[in-house]
Amino acid sequence: MRCSDEFLRLSERIADAVSEAIEGLVGTRDAGRVLYTGADGTPTKLIDDVSEKAIFKLLTKEDNPYRVISEEAGEQIIGKAPCYTIIIDPIDGTYNACSGIPFYSISLAVTGNDVNDIRFGYVRNLATGDTFYAEAGKGAYLNGVRIKPSDNRDISRFCISIYGHRHNTREAAILSRSVRRVRALGSVALELCYVAAGKIDAFADVRGTMRMTDIAAGKLIIEEAGGIVTSGCGESLKLEDKVIMSRVSVIASNGYAHDKILKLSAGILHEGQ
Amino acid sequence: MRCSDEFLRLSERIADAVSEAIEGLVGTRDAGRVLYTGADGTPTKLIDDVSEKAIFKLLTKEDNPYRVISEEAGEQIIGKAPCYTIIIDPIDGTYNACSGIPFYSISLAVTGNDVNDIRFGYVRNLATGDTFYAEAGKGAYLNGVRIKPSDNRDISRFCISIYGHRHNTREAAILSRSVRRVRALGSVALELCYVAAGKIDAFADVRGTMRMTDIAAGKLIIEEAGGIVTSGCGESLKLEDKVIMSRVSVIASNGYAHDKILKLSAGILHEGQ
Repeated sequence: MRCSDEFLRLSERIADAVSEAIEGLVGTRDAGRVLYTGADGTPTKLIDDVSEKAIFKLLTKEDNPYRVISEEAGEQIIGKAPCYTIIIDPIDGTYNACSGIPFYSISLAVTGNDVNDIRFGYVRNLATGDTFYAEAGKGAYLNGVRIKPSDNRDISRFCISIYGHRHNTREAAILSRSVRRVRALGSVALELCYVAAGKIDAFADVRGTMRMTDIAAGKLIIEEAGGIVTSGCGESLKLEDKVIMSRVSVIASNGYAHDKILKLSAGILHEGQ
Repeated sequence: MRCSDEFLRLSERIADAVSEAIEGLVGTRDAGRVLYTGADGTPTKLIDDVSEKAIFKLLTKEDNPYRVISEEAGEQIIGKAPCYTIIIDPIDGTYNACSGIPFYSISLAVTGNDVNDIRFGYVRNLATGDTFYAEAGKGAYLNGVRIKPSDNRDISRFCISIYGHRHNTREAAILSRSVRRVRALGSVALELCYVAAGKIDAFADVRGTMRMTDIAAGKLIIEEAGGIVTSGCGESLKLEDKVIMSRVSVIASNGYAHDKILKLSAGILHEGQ
């Protein structure tokens, strides 16, 4: 197995290339121009397309073979007989990037041929440069410093980030009433890392349409940090080997109130219980 | 009347002083240590206190007299017979600053003796340096470039930022179902500026506990940009000359769907009507 340094250096090169490619686009109307429907079934905007092209340009120059699963292009094989799969969301938080809200990221996971064998996860906030990464079995880091989730045990004092408010206002309302603070920041990959680093206490996707490209890196980073991430049913998150996954919801937390959040988000418990 | 350049330069000096004062504190546990209850009736944390002290230190060195209304210290008179009032929230988005979420700001308005005579408004995102300002009658700017709200007329395509989810889940749910995207970013002063600059289409405070220090600068910046900001009843926002205002809710928008948002947030209309 290659050392994490190699994956980290590759991730840094990829993130640098994307950063450079989008420099003049962030916050412009042009960035949001829809070009086509991507492999994940959602509209690919100019800024997504430019980012992904920069990534493939870089990867095809490298000596190493990779299987790539990317949000817009789907599965691509680079070189011969790759042993590693790279799962990429070139821009997570496209709306924020188009609007110049400083909360959008590149999310990148390196796995073996089995996509559930996640070896390395990397998420960089492209607006601020904050970089989260983790190697399996070796902990999680923010800008090179080891991170861990918050030690907040009382859900009534939680800051929770909720994705999908408009799609499930009932669950969103139950969760909102149960905590101290609600955020909706607009980049799931980064919000998962925020749970890992204790910047927020929990994250709940109440829509239930996560893609593997959104969560592969964040999953490893949370688990390596010591937090918990599961489906909305409390099951271990299993990635499917395709861009368009079956519907899956994601709940992440510092680990101290995970069951309670699961029950609340399933509508079984009500706040105050 | 003094020129806006003078107010802008003063604001820049103040924001620089706060930036410098909090540099080592952002994202640390110590930043959030509660010291006392501020003039606005909410807990003053170390990062708020350090910021405000840096501001008063700078202002007392200046030659000019000012009346200052600040979130933590309340009303203070600096020098003799001031003609101007400076309304300051040293850190808007304290939780984000303590957690290192790149979305917290200083908000500063310069008024005549009448606090509703707002001459100048200034908001800087202290994490990114993005700076919004406006002078009465002279337009609004982001990093020196003139800004205007979005031209989105269709509320079903709006990105709306909602403050106070947990306090009013019914209104939050009605608004959430009516739009395309929901954000909850955690710094009201900055979210108002985001409406002014078209980064989001609208902002709704469904809690109804805004303070003048949160909204004085943002109000002028939105109005000078060409957007609309009112109370939840649709009335012009009147600032009261005290840190603890009567309960007031705030709705801000690009101007194209303001009445609809007011009706939705008051529960009169339901989505789809």
